[in-house]
Amino acid sequence: MMRSVVTDGMNRLAVLHAPGDVRLEERPVPEPGPREVLVEIAAVGVCGSDVHYFEHGRIGPYVVTSPLVLGHESAGRVAALGPGATRHAVGDRVTLEPGVPCGGCRECRAGRYNLCRDVRFFATPPIDGAFARFVVIHEDFAFALPDGVSDDAGALMEPLSVGIWACRKASVTAGDRVLVTGAGPIGLLAMQTALAFGATEVTVTDVSPQRLEIARRTGATRALAAGDDVGEVDALIECSGHPAALSAGIAALRPAGTAVVVGMGPTEEATVPLSLIQNREIWLTGVFRYANTYPTAIALVSEGRVDLDAIVTGHYDLDDTEAALRSSREDPGNIKAVIVP
Amino acid sequence: MMRSVVTDGMNRLAVLHAPGDVRLEERPVPEPGPREVLVEIAAVGVCGSDVHYFEHGRIGPYVVTSPLVLGHESAGRVAALGPGATRHAVGDRVTLEPGVPCGGCRECRAGRYNLCRDVRFFATPPIDGAFARFVVIHEDFAFALPDGVSDDAGALMEPLSVGIWACRKASVTAGDRVLVTGAGPIGLLAMQTALAFGATEVTVTDVSPQRLEIARRTGATRALAAGDDVGEVDALIECSGHPAALSAGIAALRPAGTAVVVGMGPTEEATVPLSLIQNREIWLTGVFRYANTYPTAIALVSEGRVDLDAIVTGHYDLDDTEAALRSSREDPGNIKAVIVP
Amino acid sequence: MMRSVVTDGMNRLAVLHAPGDVRLEERPVPEPGPREVLVEIAAVGVCGSDVHYFEHGRIGPYVVTSPLVLGHESAGRVAALGPGATRHAVGDRVTLEPGVPCGGCRECRAGRYNLCRDVRFFATPPIDGAFARFVVIHEDFAFALPDGVSDDAGALMEPLSVGIWACRKASVTAGDRVLVTGAGPIGLLAMQTALAFGATEVTVTDVSPQRLEIARRTGATRALAAGDDVGEVDALIECSGHPAALSAGIAALRPAGTAVVVGMGPTEEATVPLSLIQNREIWLTGVFRYANTYPTAIALVSEGRVDLDAIVTGHYDLDDTEAALRSSREDPGNIKAVIVP
Amino acid sequence: MMRSVVTDGMNRLAVLHAPGDVRLEERPVPEPGPREVLVEIAAVGVCGSDVHYFEHGRIGPYVVTSPLVLGHESAGRVAALGPGATRHAVGDRVTLEPGVPCGGCRECRAGRYNLCRDVRFFATPPIDGAFARFVVIHEDFAFALPDGVSDDAGALMEPLSVGIWACRKASVTAGDRVLVTGAGPIGLLAMQTALAFGATEVTVTDVSPQRLEIARRTGATRALAAGDDVGEVDALIECSGHPAALSAGIAALRPAGTAVVVGMGPTEEATVPLSLIQNREIWLTGVFRYANTYPTAIALVSEGRVDLDAIVTGHYDLDDTEAALRSSREDPGNIKAVIVP
Repeated sequence: MMRSVVTDGMNRLAVLHAPGDVRLEERPVPEPGPREVLVEIAAVGVCGSDVHYFEHGRIGPYVVTSPLVLGHESAGRVAALGPGATRHAVGDRVTLEPGVPCGGCRECRAGRYNLCRDVRFFATPPIDGAFARFVVIHEDFAFALPDGVSDDAGALMEPLSVGIWACRKASVTAGDRVLVTGAGPIGLLAMQTALAFGATEVTVTDVSPQRLEIARRTGATRALAAGDDVGEVDALIECSGHPAALSAGIAALRPAGTAVVVGMGPTEEATVPLSLIQNREIWLTGVFRYANTYPTAIALVSEGRVDLDAIVTGHYDLDDTEAALRSSREDPGNIKAVIVP
Repeated sequence: MMRSVVTDGMNRLAVLHAPGDVRLEERPVPEPGPREVLVEIAAVGVCGSDVHYFEHGRIGPYVVTSPLVLGHESAGRVAALGPGATRHAVGDRVTLEPGVPCGGCRECRAGRYNLCRDVRFFATPPIDGAFARFVVIHEDFAFALPDGVSDDAGALMEPLSVGIWACRKASVTAGDRVLVTGAGPIGLLAMQTALAFGATEVTVTDVSPQRLEIARRTGATRALAAGDDVGEVDALIECSGHPAALSAGIAALRPAGTAVVVGMGPTEEATVPLSLIQNREIWLTGVFRYANTYPTAIALVSEGRVDLDAIVTGHYDLDDTEAALRSSREDPGNIKAVIVP
Repeated sequence: MMRSVVTDGMNRLAVLHAPGDVRLEERPVPEPGPREVLVEIAAVGVCGSDVHYFEHGRIGPYVVTSPLVLGHESAGRVAALGPGATRHAVGDRVTLEPGVPCGGCRECRAGRYNLCRDVRFFATPPIDGAFARFVVIHEDFAFALPDGVSDDAGALMEPLSVGIWACRKASVTAGDRVLVTGAGPIGLLAMQTALAFGATEVTVTDVSPQRLEIARRTGATRALAAGDDVGEVDALIECSGHPAALSAGIAALRPAGTAVVVGMGPTEEATVPLSLIQNREIWLTGVFRYANTYPTAIALVSEGRVDLDAIVTGHYDLDDTEAALRSSREDPGNIKAVIVP
Repeated sequence: MMRSVVTDGMNRLAVLHAPGDVRLEERPVPEPGPREVLVEIAAVGVCGSDVHYFEHGRIGPYVVTSPLVLGHESAGRVAALGPGATRHAVGDRVTLEPGVPCGGCRECRAGRYNLCRDVRFFATPPIDGAFARFVVIHEDFAFALPDGVSDDAGALMEPLSVGIWACRKASVTAGDRVLVTGAGPIGLLAMQTALAFGATEVTVTDVSPQRLEIARRTGATRALAAGDDVGEVDALIECSGHPAALSAGIAALRPAGTAVVVGMGPTEEATVPLSLIQNREIWLTGVFRYANTYPTAIALVSEGRVDLDAIVTGHYDLDDTEAALRSSREDPGNIKAVIVP
């Protein structure tokens, strides 16, 4: 088996040095370690967390204290195999699950590896991400992409995984009525995912008419202005980060319904309608990344149940990473920018 | 509120007196009791169990000892309201859930009302069914039909409910690979249901090329001859009643996969690959009718996720009930006959 | 079968007319209706909700607008059978599940009958309760008491049911570490219940040293002052109604742990550590009464796994209902007063 | 930190060369690899699988083709730490979970690591077991033993884990009625475990009056001759391997009850009452080892909920391994022999 393709020996990366300060740099191409693969990146999505790091240099307890490569929504081609790596061949197209857990702690052993304290997650200090020409990753966290799936879609398996994880937490199933509050990229994908899980009524709310229009176009049963009456639903997937959306969404839940909080709010704490949660025995939880979602994500996209290309609103060279970050921050119509290194 | 429409006072019914002996009879139109509704039947599907009663006069412990009206897959229009019935208006189109449980026993209180010992189920001795112009039923077991749903589809919410219940038992969810063995009406609907639950690979097997062709036409990802290799699947829905299909299907399950037995086998007992069930920690269960499925069934059909009209292969007058039963028994291509009283 | 015992024809009841105004009254003994039983009450526990109605005349949306008999924790002897009642014999000792749901709505059919909107629940306006010599109830909601179980214990199956329901919601199982905040009667019973569910470490917190002492004596692994560090736990059962206890309890949960809110807080809304709920994927829910708990409660008490008599701190005649209510309100050491009509 | 204690440099092991041929041998003490610990064994239980290998040289597909050290129920003291091992200190008492999975495959990532195809499990060809003075194991699979727990009990955490896993699969919870068929060591521990999970009625059946007497003495609510009527139960834990016990046990299950098959039957296939499984919607599954049970096992034993020492019926030197194996095979009263190397 060919164990690598010829590369020019230098990696190119977009490195965040300080808030607002992203620099294009060159470093040696990394060597894949035992059971790792070297991947030449073909597409990387820009995530709200990338934008947040770019703007503030931190997300809650995660602080950028040394130069950091952002980007964790990525797909590419296998360029070299580390020792013992047998799962992929050089040249294979793959999408990358960007968090590699320890595999041995209580959470990992229980199947909740997203809650592993020792996970190494792309673009989370101090682990570098994928705004780069090359990255290395454990072979088990690279997943083969079927032919019909684009590189962009391969990269967006990551935000789709969040939608899948949220739908699993909400136990979305056939015939459900789901409310998705917030029509950003995660909300839009959670909406498509809920439909793919069999929900027959998926309502999306947002303050931006532009985003609601995209929601309608990509399959939402209803797209309503935030605050409109939505009737009764079986599940809420809160993707806006707005406390009012959470409270109103909980109030719309049927007895024993589930609210899953995905959006990050402005503060550590939030006020919730606790009497209602008690009287209707509502379940409230949140998602932290995802676990065991990539095979599902790939199957849904490959079978046409979810259209990831539909939310891509712009492509950028690696040189234009800063422009991609700025546009994602400022333009509500720029749902999902993709960098092509 | 109008509490009844004018009827001519006589009901017409197809009554089974003995194996092979179905007679058209007239009886007074029944009076709806407290909280019951009188329904004028518009369509009734012919089920394998109707055919079995017609042929053998019994199904296992259920024996036809006095004249019995068959038929339990029905839809129609509300013709009169009993005292206290408020859920429907005269003229409403409804589909009928044909089993009314006691509502108070341990099973009912636990939400497993399909396992209620005192359930009164259409066309199960000694309860009469719906091969009739009029039937009465508790208003809670009549469900409003949306405008776009045909009478035939309304009647077939019943076998669809079996498919939904099987998919729930099998925990079918987005991205799953499901094997449905047997392409009779239940298998074909279980296949469509699995797709509606988000399964991305649904394989149907049967011995009849004619039925496999219908499976392909109505959405099966793959339709294979019984015995062909199907690879690995997450769930098995056994609808053929063939012991070999069950054993082979279990052998195809991934570790911790689920096998749901829907088809009635030739004997009370069956031989299963127990070591495999143990070593792979497979779950095996069966379905007995269904519970809490009608709202889901209606939503799936109404939203176009399941096409019930696609499996209707013939219509018959009430006078031709016997012909409908005979054809259903003898012609493998007659997937679903519908009687229009 | 004897269908009734001789009674003097008059019922005696403690009736709440207005906050602080409880009067002993006589009314005719009620006739048991179809499938109902007449029960001569032997013991009724005083619940915090009785005290709250006595003091304020309302609990949230439930307002006492006409004279109301309080009391919903009761046991007694069957004194007469209504038409069709066959489950019990006259003279049988029974405990009463005080809420009779409709049996037919979506919640009832799904097994969540505690969330039925049409439930008729003792001592909840306008339904009279059991501070009375006689009550009638549907036979399915009277459960036979084994010989070794006292009348007091029979009455306290009701608050025990809350503990069981909370432990089920929290999925308490063998080896779990459970935190119970609040050592009132519900907290103390939730603690015993958690142990009976197999929890090996059950910590109780409260502000009252007197109550913590009772917690220790009745089995708590640890009894700590509210605010003390409790380490990590698998489940929180919040029984104090204090927002601070809820927040601190959530912070003590392991990743993917569950918080069940039982105590009623001072306001409709509460502030919760939402980031923590998200980052650790914690589940938060509440309980509203219970469903399908009485057989379990009786089994646990009968087998000595839970000791209900241990929390009874006083007995009162029906004439002394007001004294029982006042003492329960004012004396933190009066964990559970029982009225013996 | 001290990284090893002085050892004489030679390991002693009981090695199976062929059916009936066990030899005591000396080999160099193994070096613990990265994150491994060297453990000096203090106690090893003799399991039915050890006896089966000793007698037949194989168990189903697992064949002893080269000399094999048996024994997988073990506890001891940490004698040395491999590079990077930090979880234990030299001298710590530990119990060993004998199967180390790959940590990265689909099953491992889903929390079903017992179904990992690449698991390395003690005493399963070609992996050596613990009938030895020293073994090495990954530090994550050695669990600290509390002071009050004996070495014997430490060793028997392994069969207890099977009981815990079976109770989890059967969803045993407070108030349940459980039937355990077969009163060998696994059945007796499953019985104690079911009680620890809150079951209030645990019936054990066996053909041996001697074993039934032990069942009674160690806590069984009832101990009945195989074939006696057991009434209705919520869960069946089949530990005898007898097909008749499985069929009769399934027939005793309540609607929607669960049967968990633990005992290995005489053949790969078994005949089960399939109509009953269907009509009552019974769940049938099996257990293959266990996952995530050791912390629970240790907590239950440490808190006195399960008494492992109660089933130990004999101790043997490592030199007497053959005698221990023979006695375990031949004497039904020798429930659990323990080897003390």
